[in-house]
Amino acid sequence: MDHDVVDTLISPEGRLEVLSKAEVAKLLDTSKTGLYKVFRQCALAVLNCGSTIDDGKELLERYQSFDINIIQRERGIKLDIKGAPAIAFVDGKMIKGIHEHLFAVLRDIVFVSNEVTDNPKFDLASTEGITDSVFHILRNANVLQPQRNPNLVVCWGGHSINRIEYNYTKEVGYQLGLRELDICTGCGPGAMKGPMKGATIGHAKQRLRGGRYLGISEPGIIAAESPNPIVNDLVIMPDIEKRLEAFVRTGHGIIVFPGGAGTAEEILYILGILLHPDNAELPFPLVFTGPASAADYFRQIDSFIAGTLGEEARKRYKIIIDNPEEVAQEMQLGIRQVREYRKSRSDAYYFNWALRIDHEFQKPFKPTHENMHSLSLHKNQPVHMLAANLRRAFSGVVAGNVKEEGIRNIEQHGPFEIRGEKEIMGPMDVLLSSFVEQSRMKLPGKAYVPCYRVVQ
Amino acid sequence: MDHDVVDTLISPEGRLEVLSKAEVAKLLDTSKTGLYKVFRQCALAVLNCGSTIDDGKELLERYQSFDINIIQRERGIKLDIKGAPAIAFVDGKMIKGIHEHLFAVLRDIVFVSNEVTDNPKFDLASTEGITDSVFHILRNANVLQPQRNPNLVVCWGGHSINRIEYNYTKEVGYQLGLRELDICTGCGPGAMKGPMKGATIGHAKQRLRGGRYLGISEPGIIAAESPNPIVNDLVIMPDIEKRLEAFVRTGHGIIVFPGGAGTAEEILYILGILLHPDNAELPFPLVFTGPASAADYFRQIDSFIAGTLGEEARKRYKIIIDNPEEVAQEMQLGIRQVREYRKSRSDAYYFNWALRIDHEFQKPFKPTHENMHSLSLHKNQPVHMLAANLRRAFSGVVAGNVKEEGIRNIEQHGPFEIRGEKEIMGPMDVLLSSFVEQSRMKLPGKAYVPCYRVVQ
Amino acid sequence: MDHDVVDTLISPEGRLEVLSKAEVAKLLDTSKTGLYKVFRQCALAVLNCGSTIDDGKELLERYQSFDINIIQRERGIKLDIKGAPAIAFVDGKMIKGIHEHLFAVLRDIVFVSNEVTDNPKFDLASTEGITDSVFHILRNANVLQPQRNPNLVVCWGGHSINRIEYNYTKEVGYQLGLRELDICTGCGPGAMKGPMKGATIGHAKQRLRGGRYLGISEPGIIAAESPNPIVNDLVIMPDIEKRLEAFVRTGHGIIVFPGGAGTAEEILYILGILLHPDNAELPFPLVFTGPASAADYFRQIDSFIAGTLGEEARKRYKIIIDNPEEVAQEMQLGIRQVREYRKSRSDAYYFNWALRIDHEFQKPFKPTHENMHSLSLHKNQPVHMLAANLRRAFSGVVAGNVKEEGIRNIEQHGPFEIRGEKEIMGPMDVLLSSFVEQSRMKLPGKAYVPCYRVVQ
Amino acid sequence: MDHDVVDTLISPEGRLEVLSKAEVAKLLDTSKTGLYKVFRQCALAVLNCGSTIDDGKELLERYQSFDINIIQRERGIKLDIKGAPAIAFVDGKMIKGIHEHLFAVLRDIVFVSNEVTDNPKFDLASTEGITDSVFHILRNANVLQPQRNPNLVVCWGGHSINRIEYNYTKEVGYQLGLRELDICTGCGPGAMKGPMKGATIGHAKQRLRGGRYLGISEPGIIAAESPNPIVNDLVIMPDIEKRLEAFVRTGHGIIVFPGGAGTAEEILYILGILLHPDNAELPFPLVFTGPASAADYFRQIDSFIAGTLGEEARKRYKIIIDNPEEVAQEMQLGIRQVREYRKSRSDAYYFNWALRIDHEFQKPFKPTHENMHSLSLHKNQPVHMLAANLRRAFSGVVAGNVKEEGIRNIEQHGPFEIRGEKEIMGPMDVLLSSFVEQSRMKLPGKAYVPCYRVVQ
Repeated sequence: MDHDVVDTLISPEGRLEVLSKAEVAKLLDTSKTGLYKVFRQCALAVLNCGSTIDDGKELLERYQSFDINIIQRERGIKLDIKGAPAIAFVDGKMIKGIHEHLFAVLRDIVFVSNEVTDNPKFDLASTEGITDSVFHILRNANVLQPQRNPNLVVCWGGHSINRIEYNYTKEVGYQLGLRELDICTGCGPGAMKGPMKGATIGHAKQRLRGGRYLGISEPGIIAAESPNPIVNDLVIMPDIEKRLEAFVRTGHGIIVFPGGAGTAEEILYILGILLHPDNAELPFPLVFTGPASAADYFRQIDSFIAGTLGEEARKRYKIIIDNPEEVAQEMQLGIRQVREYRKSRSDAYYFNWALRIDHEFQKPFKPTHENMHSLSLHKNQPVHMLAANLRRAFSGVVAGNVKEEGIRNIEQHGPFEIRGEKEIMGPMDVLLSSFVEQSRMKLPGKAYVPCYRVVQ
Repeated sequence: MDHDVVDTLISPEGRLEVLSKAEVAKLLDTSKTGLYKVFRQCALAVLNCGSTIDDGKELLERYQSFDINIIQRERGIKLDIKGAPAIAFVDGKMIKGIHEHLFAVLRDIVFVSNEVTDNPKFDLASTEGITDSVFHILRNANVLQPQRNPNLVVCWGGHSINRIEYNYTKEVGYQLGLRELDICTGCGPGAMKGPMKGATIGHAKQRLRGGRYLGISEPGIIAAESPNPIVNDLVIMPDIEKRLEAFVRTGHGIIVFPGGAGTAEEILYILGILLHPDNAELPFPLVFTGPASAADYFRQIDSFIAGTLGEEARKRYKIIIDNPEEVAQEMQLGIRQVREYRKSRSDAYYFNWALRIDHEFQKPFKPTHENMHSLSLHKNQPVHMLAANLRRAFSGVVAGNVKEEGIRNIEQHGPFEIRGEKEIMGPMDVLLSSFVEQSRMKLPGKAYVPCYRVVQ
Repeated sequence: MDHDVVDTLISPEGRLEVLSKAEVAKLLDTSKTGLYKVFRQCALAVLNCGSTIDDGKELLERYQSFDINIIQRERGIKLDIKGAPAIAFVDGKMIKGIHEHLFAVLRDIVFVSNEVTDNPKFDLASTEGITDSVFHILRNANVLQPQRNPNLVVCWGGHSINRIEYNYTKEVGYQLGLRELDICTGCGPGAMKGPMKGATIGHAKQRLRGGRYLGISEPGIIAAESPNPIVNDLVIMPDIEKRLEAFVRTGHGIIVFPGGAGTAEEILYILGILLHPDNAELPFPLVFTGPASAADYFRQIDSFIAGTLGEEARKRYKIIIDNPEEVAQEMQLGIRQVREYRKSRSDAYYFNWALRIDHEFQKPFKPTHENMHSLSLHKNQPVHMLAANLRRAFSGVVAGNVKEEGIRNIEQHGPFEIRGEKEIMGPMDVLLSSFVEQSRMKLPGKAYVPCYRVVQ
Repeated sequence: MDHDVVDTLISPEGRLEVLSKAEVAKLLDTSKTGLYKVFRQCALAVLNCGSTIDDGKELLERYQSFDINIIQRERGIKLDIKGAPAIAFVDGKMIKGIHEHLFAVLRDIVFVSNEVTDNPKFDLASTEGITDSVFHILRNANVLQPQRNPNLVVCWGGHSINRIEYNYTKEVGYQLGLRELDICTGCGPGAMKGPMKGATIGHAKQRLRGGRYLGISEPGIIAAESPNPIVNDLVIMPDIEKRLEAFVRTGHGIIVFPGGAGTAEEILYILGILLHPDNAELPFPLVFTGPASAADYFRQIDSFIAGTLGEEARKRYKIIIDNPEEVAQEMQLGIRQVREYRKSRSDAYYFNWALRIDHEFQKPFKPTHENMHSLSLHKNQPVHMLAANLRRAFSGVVAGNVKEEGIRNIEQHGPFEIRGEKEIMGPMDVLLSSFVEQSRMKLPGKAYVPCYRVVQ
């Protein structure tokens, strides 16, 4: 049973375990920095992998006695864990992949707190400063690997998808894997897990030893989207905006599978960026795909984009229905163009410095009732600004659905009100309703109660 | 389309490519040794992996223009291939796993011909001589790895199983993989592929780099049961009896999934051996398992065994229905006992020298109409002798179903006649009929016409 | 001929090459930070390895046209090098070990400047802050490896020693290598190179793949003591005091071979620390050794220590003459005690946090005429304070002998005056004179002109 | 002290330890096959490495109680060793390199006996059959590595050379190592050890992990020329002629340092082969080299060759005095030509099939008094036949000097008589006398008593 718990003591492997006295002290100082709270929360999420909760608040309540402590030993540090979900263990031994994830969480939380947040070197109020901090977090996590040719495909899509869609994501992953492409996802279940499983089989058939399954998460979402243990490179970015920036600067192309509000947020983010005039010439393969049964879904998405961002936006992506092989070939081709482009300009393969990301897409957005209420959702602004604001609206819906803080907000103050111009609110309402109907908002199990109200 | 063909030139990796002039000459000397014919046939089978043919004769007829030649180059040999099935390639490049298999085939065919068949050192008329030849073929294929603890689970079962059964074999493989157990199968589709796919995911989650997926085939069966590219250690034994001996001497435990005549042959083989008085004390975990829907199937098998080999035989296996985790735990426990037993006697972990295999189980059986007709199928003989003869009967049915030579025999002379004592023929007829009904004899697609007639 | 020069363009391997835009910019900004000057100087020193200069000033003057620039490429950065000493190349290709060293220099200079110097996190005015910075520099250089058992032997001794002494250091290194001990030195010629060469052969015979040859340098000394390419882990600490701290916190034992002023400085440093009451119980194997011909030398050192620091100090080391095997066994034994001690207290193996280093030994000492003149060299102070001041005196002599800035100082203002109590100045004068006589001050070639004057 | 002995039990690593029951039995069957005697003798030689005996008979007499047995264990075989020379151990633990050599000896002795000697496949009376057996022994020892570019330099020369010559061989090895060339020698001390030590340092500086130090020996010589533990690929060929063939078919070029009768044998062997008309076009770099002090030595060799084999022979080698760098460059250049040549003809890089070796150079020569006495040493025969016979004469001298059987022969029957045409016997006598004068016949220690008498 999932509520069973296990106590254990584990050692890290590799560089992580070398913490300084000051770093250990800071992490354990629960009162001052609040660092411990974040660490405990992310650790619990990692350990809960494979269970069917997608509700950060419920997770924390279920495992209230969960505790994790760092202790110093002659060969480095160890983690002393009490009350961990039994699902992370096989016959009493923690699954190795989950074991690694715990230390990745520790690494990123220590680094962000010690080297980024309090470091005057990073001007987090500027575009350059934020990008620089994203770069440093990824470099510290050993994610930037200069010797590799571009081959990293970001897969986006819902955590709650049906069996047919899930099998389709596996099949696409398999075709990518056969072509020796690597996978990056937001590291939860559904469309974030399928491509990795498929690619694992594809890589095994190609005898590819160093296949990468990169998962990029953030403390707010991780509880709802526990990293699958196949993920062999896990990074915890400090917030949703840096997580999105990490996706688009490390990935060499993006595939979007069916999904709900989170997927809509991601689509608006990447389109908003690609629509920036400075990025007009930048090659960036972007494919929306799903099985035959998802054809309608993408028609809807497509018309929502046309209706809000306009025809120009539609030129930046391609919709492919029910053809995993074509998707993989399209990605391979697109990534080859990315490579040529960067080579010709001596741009790095491992970090897309050239991509212009407007500050509007970088500033952390806090989905309070106030902020959600005052979003500028009208066409009287540049199209990439509208995309930025639409992105925020969907981001708020995600928070209200699955993030601990968001859920508490909704419990206290009722649903968010989202308001704006009728021409935008109309399509948006349609889209959100279809997500609800198709059970894309939350994992099945309970009836979905919307956390928002669209006011036209 | 599967009938598409590709020409290519490939280089081996590793030790294989170092052939002497004499070895190359012998292999290419088509007239004298017949070696080339076997090599071509196995190579074609390997390349056809993933297609849905399970008919050796059909395969050869479909790719009549297929040709494969060895050429000498400064860095070793290369294979020049014409008319290979396109299914072995991704965007024109051969899948690495298949590439490896081609050279494994070459290695084993060269070794058996050069070092075994014509070598007076091996007295193939004696029990010791046959076992010694099995040992040398496996050692040459680098399959005997002394540094490993016992962890190799042999999975038997049908190549033609339904989706529910197939998913179940994957789930069992996953649970084995999570426990860091390795998989050995006969390397075709169905129950031979599922456990390997599952274990691949389990191993990935446990960060196990050196997971083994050992496939053991033989020239007669390989065309019908193409090795899946996940197989990362492939051995081609010279005949079905040496293949069976290889399974039971290298594996540390056996799981039997639902299957048809081949699976029945395997069950009779292992039970016939375990019933030999010399093996009475030997630990050998043996589990029959399947999903809930297969409960009836195993009841039938169980009662067939009880009715023919007697109650004693039932003590050597355990039936577990619909519980992959328990199956994996049972194997892990059983293999631990194997380890203790061998340790206490200083027996090798990598080759079960202590297992007594009666010469009756080693002698190659040629399923001619004559031989099938004269099998001694009565209870007036030691139970392990009866098992040996029943094994031959099922072996003949497999040959008539899927092997090139067997199919041609049946085409010419009509179905085999199998006759014997009523108390045996009755249950046998029932069992065979149920295999037919449940489509376990051949892959679906055509109606099955039995290649045998049970004469009671 | 050594003055030949070569131009080349090289790529790094590994993590180093991932620099952010800001890091590259800072490094190339010659006017503001002065970083470029240090980088160029260290790079030149690394490239000059194997030549017979031990004079930082001469080196810079000889290769005035030497230039090194960082350029961004698609797979990371590259170094564009003009006018490099030809000695670093074999048939026009840079020796791989030197190639690695260049990027190690780059890594440390970037890290110290970006993450240490300007980072408010490090309070460089406090003992803890300095130790923390040493820890971070070493961790960033990947020197702290928690999975290893204690096995790192620091070898100190002169860069200018005779052939017999040099061969002896090789033999000791060989015996250490046979016992699978690793070597750490200051990474120049003489006693810093011999043990590494010997250990390389010892490790090869023991089939040890991951043998470590750790070199720890600093910008002031590196020009005089170019790292030998055998060094496979090179770290550039920011100053001599942090370099010394790095030695004693990472090493598990120390061997001192014959040497000159630098060696005396090192002896006084380690004894000053070990004499601190807090370190009284700490096991720390310390052996002085040399061939039979060096017996007198160590008698002199021994009596200097007795005369200045007292009998207590003599208990912390052991003198072994002409017995490499015993030296290696002594180290092995001592390191085993270090291991037991740390294990019992759960102290890290890879960084000696428990060693108390008084702030007097950490504060950078600038050897100006003023500072040298006012050193407190009398017995009216705690013995570890006297050791600290004597250490500074010898440190000044080293600077005057081989460091660029020191040499310029002496050229302008004449020799340093070192003055103090007669009971100390007497033995010191004797010791320094013997170093001169035995050619231990500088590499042979020119007559040595003392850079100091002892005033009794 | 060297006569100390140690008992131990060791396990192999890798493939070696997988022996069949029959193989173990055969090896332990002391009476029938005599295999055990050869194994014991070679094992003792391997263990005696580093001592100063070069006398097979003395070695066996000194360690009469030495015993080595194979025992079967669960993880494979082990070797139970009694009375082994203490020199093979460091603080009671066997040096890893020597440990490996013991199992290499076992591997080759088992293989030659089981797969070559009694295998009708090899017609050892024919040129092709012998070459094929050499190929199979090398392949089984994993020496033929097809993925490597040609880079194997064979170094020949004396086991008894002076310090200056020894240091020179190290320096040449160092220069070869810096150029990433690998070393192959006969694996004893002196000129067989120096180049490997030098190359180890060169490879370390170039960060070359997989540097090869291949030693090729045979049971008769191994006791006198114990393999240095640096040798990381050891092969024991069955006799001196197959050993020589192994050198010239695997090596891509040869360097000859000063030496005695064995070196003369080697020079005559390679020149005899290169003078065969079929080899006229074959590139084969051959350099004779030594320090300035060896200039005379090579003048003598050169004039002996001119006087016996003629001017044509002198065109196949180059003499370079006191210039290690030039030697290395010459080899690099020559090997590049070898590569081009083989590439153009699609010849293997790892085995020189194209080199024609006359049967006269392959037939084992037994140096009895009778055979030595009747050698045809006159000019009335093709020059390569004369070379073959001269080779035999020197081979006999080596046997009489250092091989167990040879020494016993001489003890019983007095010195060999070597007779022939005056024009040949004259120069030969001069050459042999100079070897004696320069102490090149045996390691220093005792006065050398010639084992031959030249009769003009």
